[in-house]
Amino acid sequence: MADNNRIWTAALLVIGDEILSGRTQDKNIAQVASWLGVQGIRLAEVRVVGDRTEAIVEAVNTLRARNDYLFTTGGIGPTHDDITVDAVAEALGVGVEIHPEARAILEGYYATRGGLNEARLRMARVPAGADLIPNRMSGAPGIRIENVFLMAGVPSITAGMLDALTGELEGGAPLLSETIGSWVQESEIADLLRETERVHEGCAIGSYPFFREGRVGANFVVRSTEPAVIEAAVEALATGLRALGREAVPGGV
Amino acid sequence: MADNNRIWTAALLVIGDEILSGRTQDKNIAQVASWLGVQGIRLAEVRVVGDRTEAIVEAVNTLRARNDYLFTTGGIGPTHDDITVDAVAEALGVGVEIHPEARAILEGYYATRGGLNEARLRMARVPAGADLIPNRMSGAPGIRIENVFLMAGVPSITAGMLDALTGELEGGAPLLSETIGSWVQESEIADLLRETERVHEGCAIGSYPFFREGRVGANFVVRSTEPAVIEAAVEALATGLRALGREAVPGGV
Repeated sequence: MADNNRIWTAALLVIGDEILSGRTQDKNIAQVASWLGVQGIRLAEVRVVGDRTEAIVEAVNTLRARNDYLFTTGGIGPTHDDITVDAVAEALGVGVEIHPEARAILEGYYATRGGLNEARLRMARVPAGADLIPNRMSGAPGIRIENVFLMAGVPSITAGMLDALTGELEGGAPLLSETIGSWVQESEIADLLRETERVHEGCAIGSYPFFREGRVGANFVVRSTEPAVIEAAVEALATGLRALGREAVPGGV
Repeated sequence: MADNNRIWTAALLVIGDEILSGRTQDKNIAQVASWLGVQGIRLAEVRVVGDRTEAIVEAVNTLRARNDYLFTTGGIGPTHDDITVDAVAEALGVGVEIHPEARAILEGYYATRGGLNEARLRMARVPAGADLIPNRMSGAPGIRIENVFLMAGVPSITAGMLDALTGELEGGAPLLSETIGSWVQESEIADLLRETERVHEGCAIGSYPFFREGRVGANFVVRSTEPAVIEAAVEALATGLRALGREAVPGGV
Protein backbone atom coordinates (compact mmCIF):
# COMPACT_ATOMS: atom_id res chain seq x y z
CA MET A 1 0.00 0.00 0.00
CA ALA A 2 1.29 3.44 -0.83
CA ASP A 3 2.54 5.56 2.04
CA ASN A 4 1.07 8.95 1.29
CA ASN A 5 3.43 10.74 3.64
CA ARG A 6 6.55 9.47 1.91
CA ILE A 7 7.88 12.10 -0.52
CA TRP A 8 9.55 10.59 -3.58
CA THR A 9 12.18 12.69 -5.28
CA ALA A 10 14.03 12.66 -8.56
CA ALA A 11 16.94 14.58 -10.01
CA LEU A 12 17.51 15.39 -13.67
CA LEU A 13 20.92 15.61 -15.30
CA VAL A 14 20.89 17.37 -18.67
CA ILE A 15 24.00 16.46 -20.68
CA GLY A 16 25.25 18.43 -23.66
CA ASP A 17 27.60 21.18 -24.81
CA GLU A 18 24.77 22.60 -26.93
CA ILE A 19 22.81 23.61 -23.82
CA LEU A 20 25.82 25.24 -22.13
CA SER A 21 26.79 27.14 -25.29
CA GLY A 22 23.29 28.59 -25.59
CA ARG A 23 22.83 27.05 -29.04
CA THR A 24 19.89 24.94 -27.89
CA GLN A 25 17.14 26.07 -25.56
CA ASP A 26 16.48 23.19 -23.15
CA LYS A 27 12.95 21.83 -23.19
CA ASN A 28 13.49 18.65 -21.21
CA ILE A 29 13.54 20.22 -17.75
CA ALA A 30 9.92 21.42 -17.96
CA GLN A 31 8.81 18.24 -19.74
CA VAL A 32 10.39 15.86 -17.22
CA ALA A 33 9.21 18.04 -14.30
CA SER A 34 5.59 17.98 -15.43
CA TRP A 35 5.66 14.24 -16.08
CA LEU A 36 7.20 13.53 -12.67
CA GLY A 37 4.49 15.58 -10.96
CA VAL A 38 1.83 13.30 -12.42
CA GLN A 39 3.76 10.24 -11.18
CA GLY A 40 3.76 11.61 -7.62
CA ILE A 41 7.50 12.23 -7.76
CA ARG A 42 9.02 15.64 -7.08
CA LEU A 43 11.84 17.00 -9.19
CA ALA A 44 14.21 18.08 -6.42
CA GLU A 45 17.18 19.36 -8.44
CA VAL A 46 18.56 19.68 -11.95
CA ARG A 47 22.10 19.93 -13.20
CA VAL A 48 23.39 20.70 -16.68
CA VAL A 49 26.88 19.51 -17.61
CA GLY A 50 28.82 19.38 -20.86
CA ASP A 51 30.05 16.35 -22.77
CA ARG A 52 32.82 15.62 -20.24
CA THR A 53 33.13 12.24 -18.52
CA GLU A 54 34.39 13.61 -15.22
CA ALA A 55 31.53 16.09 -14.88
CA ILE A 56 28.92 13.43 -15.70
CA VAL A 57 30.39 10.90 -13.26
CA GLU A 58 30.44 13.41 -10.41
CA ALA A 59 26.86 14.53 -11.01
CA VAL A 60 25.52 10.98 -11.45
CA ASN A 61 27.03 9.77 -8.21
CA THR A 62 25.85 12.75 -6.16
CA LEU A 63 22.34 12.84 -7.58
CA ARG A 64 21.51 9.13 -7.61
CA ALA A 65 22.59 8.78 -3.97
CA ARG A 66 20.32 11.45 -2.58
CA ASN A 67 17.22 10.99 -4.73
CA ASP A 68 14.90 8.05 -5.35
CA TYR A 69 15.41 8.38 -9.09
CA LEU A 70 17.88 10.02 -11.45
CA PHE A 71 16.99 10.83 -15.04
CA THR A 72 19.49 11.93 -17.65
CA THR A 73 18.85 13.45 -21.07
CA GLY A 74 21.33 13.63 -23.94
CA GLY A 75 24.47 11.89 -25.09
CA ILE A 76 23.09 8.45 -26.04
CA GLY A 77 23.35 8.81 -29.82
CA PRO A 78 25.83 7.29 -32.28
CA THR A 79 28.56 9.95 -32.49
CA HIS A 80 31.84 10.59 -30.71
CA ASP A 81 30.31 13.23 -28.41
CA ASP A 82 27.77 10.73 -27.07
CA ILE A 83 29.51 9.56 -23.91
CA THR A 84 26.66 9.19 -21.43
CA VAL A 85 26.61 5.36 -21.40
CA ASP A 86 30.34 5.11 -20.71
CA ALA A 87 30.25 7.82 -18.06
CA VAL A 88 27.28 6.27 -16.23
CA ALA A 89 28.95 2.84 -16.34
CA GLU A 90 32.06 4.41 -14.84
CA ALA A 91 29.98 6.10 -12.14
CA LEU A 92 28.33 2.80 -11.25
CA GLY A 93 31.58 0.84 -11.43
CA VAL A 94 30.35 -1.58 -14.09
CA GLY A 95 31.49 -2.39 -17.61
CA VAL A 96 29.78 -1.60 -20.91
CA GLU A 97 28.18 -4.35 -22.98
CA ILE A 98 26.07 -4.73 -26.11
CA HIS A 99 22.46 -5.38 -25.05
CA PRO A 100 21.16 -8.19 -27.31
CA GLU A 101 17.60 -6.87 -27.42
CA ALA A 102 18.82 -3.35 -28.24
CA ARG A 103 20.94 -4.80 -31.02
CA ALA A 104 17.91 -6.67 -32.41
CA ILE A 105 15.79 -3.50 -32.26
CA LEU A 106 18.45 -1.50 -34.13
CA GLU A 107 18.91 -4.27 -36.73
CA GLY A 108 15.18 -4.15 -37.41
CA TYR A 109 15.04 -0.36 -37.48
CA TYR A 110 18.02 0.06 -39.82
CA ALA A 111 17.15 -2.92 -42.06
CA THR A 112 15.48 -0.51 -44.51
CA ARG A 113 17.73 2.43 -43.62
CA GLY A 114 21.16 1.34 -44.79
CA GLY A 115 21.93 -1.39 -42.26
CA LEU A 116 23.61 -1.51 -38.88
CA ASN A 117 27.10 0.02 -39.00
CA GLU A 118 29.59 0.50 -36.19
CA ALA A 119 28.30 3.93 -35.20
CA ARG A 120 24.70 2.71 -35.02
CA LEU A 121 25.74 -0.30 -32.98
CA ARG A 122 27.07 2.15 -30.39
CA MET A 123 23.42 2.79 -29.53
CA ALA A 124 23.07 -0.84 -28.34
CA ARG A 125 25.81 -0.32 -25.75
CA VAL A 126 24.56 -0.20 -22.13
CA PRO A 127 26.10 -0.27 -18.66
CA ALA A 128 26.34 -3.98 -17.77
CA GLY A 129 23.09 -5.26 -16.26
CA ALA A 130 20.87 -2.52 -17.66
CA ASP A 131 17.30 -2.84 -18.97
CA LEU A 132 15.86 -0.95 -21.94
CA ILE A 133 13.31 1.85 -22.13
CA PRO A 134 11.27 1.52 -25.34
CA ASN A 135 11.51 4.27 -27.95
CA ARG A 136 8.82 4.21 -30.63
CA MET A 137 10.26 7.27 -32.36
CA SER A 138 13.69 6.33 -33.64
CA GLY A 139 14.72 2.80 -32.79
CA ALA A 140 17.49 3.45 -30.26
CA PRO A 141 16.11 2.65 -26.81
CA GLY A 142 16.60 4.45 -23.53
CA ILE A 143 18.35 2.64 -20.70
CA ARG A 144 17.49 1.88 -17.09
CA ILE A 145 20.04 0.68 -14.57
CA GLU A 146 19.40 0.67 -10.83
CA ASN A 147 17.62 3.98 -10.14
CA VAL A 148 19.14 5.75 -13.14
CA PHE A 149 17.20 6.34 -16.38
CA LEU A 150 19.09 7.42 -19.50
CA MET A 151 16.95 9.18 -22.08
CA ALA A 152 17.43 10.98 -25.37
CA GLY A 153 18.28 14.65 -25.75
CA VAL A 154 15.76 15.33 -28.55
CA PRO A 155 12.61 16.36 -26.64
CA SER A 156 10.14 14.46 -28.84
CA ILE A 157 12.06 11.22 -28.33
CA THR A 158 12.36 11.89 -24.60
CA ALA A 159 8.58 12.32 -24.53
CA GLY A 160 8.11 8.84 -26.00
CA MET A 161 10.43 7.33 -23.41
CA LEU A 162 8.59 9.08 -20.57
CA ASP A 163 5.34 7.78 -22.01
CA ALA A 164 6.76 4.24 -21.91
CA LEU A 165 7.65 4.73 -18.22
CA THR A 166 4.26 6.16 -17.21
CA GLY A 167 2.83 4.27 -14.23
CA GLU A 168 5.98 2.11 -13.94
CA LEU A 169 7.67 4.01 -11.09
CA GLU A 170 6.59 4.06 -7.49
CA GLY A 171 5.64 7.52 -6.27
CA GLY A 172 3.67 9.22 -3.53
CA ALA A 173 0.72 11.56 -3.50
CA PRO A 174 0.97 13.93 -6.47
CA LEU A 175 1.68 17.53 -5.60
CA LEU A 176 -1.48 19.37 -6.64
CA SER A 177 -1.69 23.05 -7.47
CA GLU A 178 -4.23 25.76 -8.10
CA THR A 179 -3.59 29.22 -9.46
CA ILE A 180 -5.31 32.48 -8.64
CA GLY A 181 -4.31 35.73 -10.31
CA SER A 182 -4.82 39.43 -9.95
CA TRP A 183 -3.85 42.71 -11.60
CA VAL A 184 -1.90 43.67 -8.54
CA GLN A 185 1.78 44.27 -7.82
CA GLU A 186 3.00 41.35 -5.75
CA SER A 187 4.78 43.84 -3.50
CA GLU A 188 1.36 45.20 -2.44
CA ILE A 189 0.18 41.88 -1.06
CA ALA A 190 3.37 40.25 0.19
CA ASP A 191 1.98 40.15 3.75
CA LEU A 192 -1.21 38.43 2.60
CA LEU A 193 0.81 35.77 0.78
CA ARG A 194 3.14 35.11 3.70
CA GLU A 195 0.30 34.92 6.26
CA THR A 196 -1.84 32.67 4.06
CA GLU A 197 1.01 30.24 3.60
CA ARG A 198 1.78 30.30 7.33
CA VAL A 199 -1.73 29.50 8.58
CA HIS A 200 -2.46 26.78 5.99
CA GLU A 201 -0.11 24.02 7.04
CA GLY A 202 1.23 21.82 4.26
CA CYS A 203 0.87 24.37 1.48
CA ALA A 204 3.45 26.41 -0.41
CA ILE A 205 2.52 29.59 -2.25
CA GLY A 206 4.58 30.84 -5.18
CA SER A 207 4.21 34.37 -6.52
CA TYR A 208 4.89 34.98 -10.22
CA PRO A 209 4.71 38.60 -11.35
CA PHE A 210 4.46 39.71 -14.96
CA PHE A 211 4.20 42.83 -17.14
CA ARG A 212 1.54 42.53 -19.83
CA GLU A 213 -0.56 44.96 -21.90
CA GLY A 214 1.19 47.81 -20.09
CA ARG A 215 -0.03 46.62 -16.68
CA VAL A 216 1.55 44.70 -13.85
CA GLY A 217 -0.05 41.64 -12.33
CA ALA A 218 0.86 38.40 -10.63
CA ASN A 219 -0.28 34.81 -10.43
CA PHE A 220 -0.17 32.95 -7.14
CA VAL A 221 0.26 29.19 -7.24
CA VAL A 222 -0.83 27.24 -4.17
CA ARG A 223 0.75 23.76 -3.96
CA SER A 224 -0.10 20.92 -1.58
CA THR A 225 -0.77 17.19 -1.66
CA GLU A 226 -4.11 17.89 0.13
CA PRO A 227 -6.98 19.23 -2.00
CA ALA A 228 -8.73 20.67 1.08
CA VAL A 229 -5.64 22.66 2.06
CA ILE A 230 -5.38 24.13 -1.43
CA GLU A 231 -9.06 25.04 -1.47
CA ALA A 232 -8.86 26.79 1.88
CA ALA A 233 -5.69 28.70 1.01
CA VAL A 234 -7.03 29.84 -2.37
CA GLU A 235 -10.24 31.01 -0.71
CA ALA A 236 -8.22 32.95 1.87
CA LEU A 237 -6.21 34.63 -0.91
CA ALA A 238 -9.38 35.55 -2.82
CA THR A 239 -10.97 37.03 0.30
CA GLY A 240 -7.80 38.96 1.09
CA LEU A 241 -7.49 40.33 -2.45
CA ARG A 242 -11.13 41.47 -2.49
CA ALA A 243 -10.72 43.13 0.93
CA LEU A 244 -7.99 45.24 -0.73
CA GLY A 245 -10.35 46.15 -3.57
CA ARG A 246 -8.65 43.81 -6.07
CA GLU A 247 -10.07 41.24 -8.38
CA ALA A 248 -9.26 37.59 -7.70
CA VAL A 249 -9.25 35.59 -10.93
CA PRO A 250 -9.56 31.80 -10.53
CA GLY A 251 -7.05 29.98 -12.74
CA GLY A 252 -4.88 33.08 -12.98
CA VAL A 253 -4.69 36.07 -15.30
CA MET B 1 47.02 42.24 -21.19
CA ALA B 2 44.64 39.40 -21.80
CA ASP B 3 46.07 35.90 -21.56
CA ASN B 4 44.41 34.18 -24.49
CA ASN B 5 45.20 30.72 -23.16
CA ARG B 6 43.42 31.29 -19.87
CA ILE B 7 39.90 29.83 -19.99
CA TRP B 8 37.41 31.76 -17.89
CA THR B 9 34.43 29.83 -16.60
CA ALA B 10 31.10 30.64 -15.03
CA ALA B 11 28.35 28.64 -13.39
CA LEU B 12 24.66 29.49 -13.36
CA LEU B 13 22.31 28.71 -10.49
CA VAL B 14 18.62 28.92 -11.42
CA ILE B 15 16.48 29.31 -8.29
CA GLY B 16 12.75 28.67 -8.17
CA ASP B 17 10.06 26.09 -7.42
CA GLU B 18 8.29 27.13 -10.62
CA ILE B 19 11.08 25.67 -12.75
CA LEU B 20 11.21 22.37 -10.83
CA SER B 21 7.43 21.97 -10.94
CA GLY B 22 7.39 22.40 -14.70
CA ARG B 23 5.08 25.41 -14.46
CA THR B 24 7.65 27.72 -16.04
CA GLN B 25 9.92 26.86 -18.95
CA ASP B 26 13.36 28.25 -18.13
CA LYS B 27 14.71 30.77 -20.61
CA ASN B 28 17.63 32.10 -18.60
CA ILE B 29 20.03 29.23 -19.23
CA ALA B 30 20.22 29.86 -22.98
CA GLN B 31 20.20 33.64 -22.50
CA VAL B 32 23.01 33.68 -19.95
CA ALA B 33 24.99 31.07 -21.93
CA SER B 34 24.88 33.13 -25.13
CA TRP B 35 25.81 36.32 -23.33
CA LEU B 36 28.74 34.66 -21.55
CA GLY B 37 30.05 33.35 -24.86
CA VAL B 38 30.34 36.90 -26.18
CA GLN B 39 32.21 37.94 -23.01
CA GLY B 40 34.82 35.21 -23.57
CA ILE B 41 33.55 33.26 -20.56
CA ARG B 42 32.40 29.64 -20.81
CA LEU B 43 29.31 28.43 -19.02
CA ALA B 44 30.74 25.31 -17.37
CA GLU B 45 27.75 24.06 -15.39
CA VAL B 46 24.20 24.89 -14.41
CA ARG B 47 22.13 23.86 -11.42
CA VAL B 48 18.45 24.37 -10.74
CA VAL B 49 17.27 24.30 -7.13
CA GLY B 50 13.99 25.16 -5.41
CA ASP B 51 13.24 27.93 -2.94
CA ARG B 52 15.11 26.19 -0.10
CA THR B 53 17.93 27.92 1.80
CA GLU B 54 19.99 24.77 2.35
CA ALA B 55 19.95 23.83 -1.34
CA ILE B 56 20.92 27.36 -2.42
CA VAL B 57 23.76 27.61 0.12
CA GLU B 58 25.24 24.27 -0.94
CA ALA B 59 25.11 25.12 -4.63
CA VAL B 60 26.48 28.66 -4.18
CA ASN B 61 29.47 27.49 -2.19
CA THR B 62 30.35 24.66 -4.57
CA LEU B 63 29.90 26.66 -7.75
CA ARG B 64 31.57 29.93 -6.74
CA ALA B 65 34.66 28.06 -5.54
CA ARG B 66 35.36 26.23 -8.77
CA ASN B 67 34.41 28.86 -11.33
CA ASP B 68 35.59 32.39 -12.01
CA TYR B 69 32.03 33.68 -11.81
CA LEU B 70 28.70 32.50 -10.46
CA PHE B 71 25.42 33.92 -11.71
CA THR B 72 22.06 33.27 -10.09
CA THR B 73 18.58 33.95 -11.44
CA GLY B 74 15.39 34.15 -9.40
CA GLY B 75 14.31 34.79 -5.82
CA ILE B 76 15.21 38.49 -5.46
CA GLY B 77 11.66 39.90 -5.47
CA PRO B 78 9.51 41.25 -2.62
CA THR B 79 7.60 38.16 -1.47
CA HIS B 80 8.14 35.47 1.19
CA ASP B 81 9.44 32.93 -1.34
CA ASP B 82 12.25 35.31 -2.40
CA ILE B 83 15.11 34.01 -0.26
CA THR B 84 18.13 34.30 -2.55
CA VAL B 85 19.73 37.31 -0.79
CA ASP B 86 19.54 35.66 2.64
CA ALA B 87 20.80 32.33 1.33
CA VAL B 88 23.76 33.89 -0.51
CA ALA B 89 24.64 35.96 2.57
CA GLU B 90 24.60 32.75 4.62
CA ALA B 91 26.79 31.00 2.06
CA LEU B 92 29.31 33.86 2.18
CA GLY B 93 29.17 34.16 5.96
CA VAL B 94 28.09 37.81 5.92
CA GLY B 95 25.04 39.63 7.23
CA VAL B 96 22.23 41.27 5.27
CA GLU B 97 21.87 45.04 5.09
CA ILE B 98 19.79 47.68 3.35
CA HIS B 99 21.84 49.14 0.49
CA PRO B 100 21.30 52.93 0.61
CA GLU B 101 21.53 53.39 -3.15
CA ALA B 102 19.07 50.53 -3.74
CA ARG B 103 16.70 52.12 -1.26
CA ALA B 104 16.94 55.44 -3.08
CA ILE B 105 16.31 53.76 -6.44
CA LEU B 106 13.21 52.00 -5.08
CA GLU B 107 11.93 55.21 -3.44
CA GLY B 108 12.18 56.95 -6.79
CA TYR B 109 10.61 54.07 -8.70
CA TYR B 110 7.66 53.63 -6.33
CA ALA B 111 7.09 57.38 -5.73
CA THR B 112 4.38 57.34 -8.39
CA ARG B 113 3.40 53.70 -7.77
CA GLY B 114 1.98 53.70 -4.24
CA GLY B 115 5.13 54.34 -2.23
CA LEU B 116 7.78 52.15 -0.62
CA ASN B 117 6.22 49.59 1.74
CA GLU B 118 7.94 46.90 3.80
CA ALA B 119 7.71 44.25 1.07
CA ARG B 120 9.22 46.58 -1.55
CA LEU B 121 11.99 47.56 0.83
CA ARG B 122 12.98 43.87 0.91
CA MET B 123 14.33 44.45 -2.60
CA ALA B 124 16.94 46.89 -1.18
CA ARG B 125 18.37 44.14 1.06
CA VAL B 126 21.80 42.85 -0.02
CA PRO B 127 24.53 40.66 1.46
CA ALA B 128 26.76 43.06 3.43
CA GLY B 129 29.40 44.66 1.21
CA ALA B 130 27.59 44.06 -2.07
CA ASP B 131 27.41 46.36 -5.10
CA LEU B 132 24.38 46.87 -7.33
CA ILE B 133 23.68 45.80 -10.91
CA PRO B 134 21.47 48.39 -12.63
CA ASN B 135 17.98 47.36 -13.75
CA ARG B 136 16.31 49.76 -16.16
CA MET B 137 13.16 47.62 -16.35
CA SER B 138 11.60 47.55 -12.91
CA GLY B 139 13.55 49.52 -10.33
CA ALA B 140 14.83 46.68 -8.15
CA PRO B 141 18.55 46.23 -8.92
CA GLY B 142 20.59 43.06 -9.24
CA ILE B 143 23.41 42.45 -6.80
CA ARG B 144 27.11 41.70 -7.10
CA ILE B 145 29.21 40.42 -4.22
CA GLU B 146 32.68 38.93 -4.70
CA ASN B 147 32.37 36.73 -7.82
CA VAL B 148 28.63 36.14 -7.37
CA PHE B 149 26.00 37.99 -9.44
CA LEU B 150 22.35 37.84 -8.35
CA MET B 151 19.89 38.54 -11.13
CA ALA B 152 16.13 38.48 -11.62
CA GLY B 153 14.10 35.43 -12.62
CA VAL B 154 11.96 37.23 -15.21
CA PRO B 155 13.98 36.82 -18.44
CA SER B 156 13.39 40.34 -19.78
CA ILE B 157 14.69 41.85 -16.53
CA THR B 158 17.64 39.46 -16.51
CA ALA B 159 18.41 40.62 -20.04
CA GLY B 160 18.66 44.23 -18.87
CA MET B 161 21.01 43.26 -16.04
CA LEU B 162 23.24 41.30 -18.42
CA ASP B 163 23.28 44.31 -20.71
CA ALA B 164 24.47 46.47 -17.79
CA LEU B 165 27.31 43.99 -17.16
CA THR B 166 28.43 43.77 -20.80
CA GLY B 167 32.16 44.43 -21.08
CA GLU B 168 32.53 44.70 -17.29
CA LEU B 169 33.89 41.20 -16.63
CA GLU B 170 37.31 39.90 -17.52
CA GLY B 171 37.21 37.01 -19.95
CA GLY B 172 39.40 35.19 -22.45
CA ALA B 173 39.18 34.55 -26.14
CA PRO B 174 35.52 33.99 -27.08
CA LEU B 175 34.64 30.47 -28.14
CA LEU B 176 33.71 30.80 -31.81
CA SER B 177 31.52 28.39 -33.72
CA GLU B 178 30.45 27.59 -37.24
CA THR B 179 27.69 25.24 -38.33
CA ILE B 180 27.50 23.01 -41.36
CA GLY B 181 24.46 20.83 -42.02
CA SER B 182 23.41 17.96 -44.20
CA TRP B 183 20.38 15.77 -44.92
CA VAL B 184 22.24 12.78 -43.57
CA GLN B 185 21.79 10.47 -40.59
CA GLU B 186 24.51 11.32 -38.11
CA SER B 187 25.09 7.59 -37.67
CA GLU B 188 26.27 7.41 -41.31
CA ILE B 189 29.10 9.85 -40.76
CA ALA B 190 30.14 9.26 -37.16
CA ASP B 191 33.65 8.24 -38.28
CA LEU B 192 34.07 11.43 -40.31
CA LEU B 193 33.07 13.55 -37.31
CA ARG B 194 35.38 11.76 -34.89
CA GLU B 195 38.37 11.87 -37.26
CA THR B 196 37.84 15.52 -38.16
CA GLU B 197 37.75 16.49 -34.49
CA ARG B 198 40.84 14.39 -33.77
CA VAL B 199 43.09 15.86 -36.47
CA HIS B 200 42.09 19.50 -35.89
CA GLU B 201 43.59 20.23 -32.51
CA GLY B 202 41.68 22.69 -30.34
CA CYS B 203 38.29 22.14 -31.91
CA ALA B 204 35.19 20.37 -30.62
CA ILE B 205 32.49 19.10 -32.97
CA GLY B 206 28.92 18.66 -31.79
CA SER B 207 26.40 16.65 -33.80
CA TYR B 208 22.72 17.62 -33.55
CA PRO B 209 20.29 15.37 -35.40
CA PHE B 210 16.69 16.28 -36.21
CA PHE B 211 13.56 14.98 -37.94
CA ARG B 212 11.92 17.55 -40.19
CA GLU B 213 9.60 17.48 -43.20
CA GLY B 214 9.63 13.69 -42.94
CA ARG B 215 13.41 13.51 -43.42
CA VAL B 216 16.33 13.06 -41.07
CA GLY B 217 19.28 15.40 -41.04
CA ALA B 218 21.89 16.77 -38.71
CA ASN B 219 23.80 19.96 -38.03
CA PHE B 220 27.43 19.86 -37.04
CA VAL B 221 28.77 22.68 -34.89
CA VAL B 222 32.52 23.22 -34.86
CA ARG B 223 33.76 25.21 -31.85
CA SER B 224 37.21 26.67 -31.22
CA THR B 225 38.83 29.89 -30.07
CA GLU B 226 40.88 29.87 -33.31
CA PRO B 227 39.13 31.00 -36.51
CA ALA B 228 41.68 29.14 -38.66
CA VAL B 229 41.01 25.87 -36.85
CA ILE B 230 37.28 26.23 -37.38
CA GLU B 231 37.72 27.04 -41.05
CA ALA B 232 39.94 24.01 -41.62
CA ALA B 233 37.64 21.64 -39.74
CA VAL B 234 34.52 22.86 -41.53
CA GLU B 235 36.26 22.48 -44.88
CA ALA B 236 37.27 18.92 -43.94
CA LEU B 237 33.67 18.08 -43.01
CA ALA B 238 32.35 19.54 -46.27
CA THR B 239 34.88 17.58 -48.31
CA GLY B 240 34.04 14.39 -46.39
CA LEU B 241 30.30 14.84 -46.84
CA ARG B 242 30.64 15.46 -50.59
CA ALA B 243 32.89 12.39 -50.92
CA LEU B 244 29.94 10.39 -49.54
CA GLY B 245 27.62 11.96 -52.12
CA ARG B 246 25.96 14.26 -49.57
CA GLU B 247 25.29 17.95 -49.65
CA ALA B 248 27.18 20.17 -47.20
CA VAL B 249 25.12 23.23 -46.32
CA PRO B 250 27.07 26.16 -44.82
CA GLY B 251 25.27 27.58 -41.80
CA GLY B 252 23.29 24.39 -41.34
CA VAL B 253 20.00 23.02 -42.61
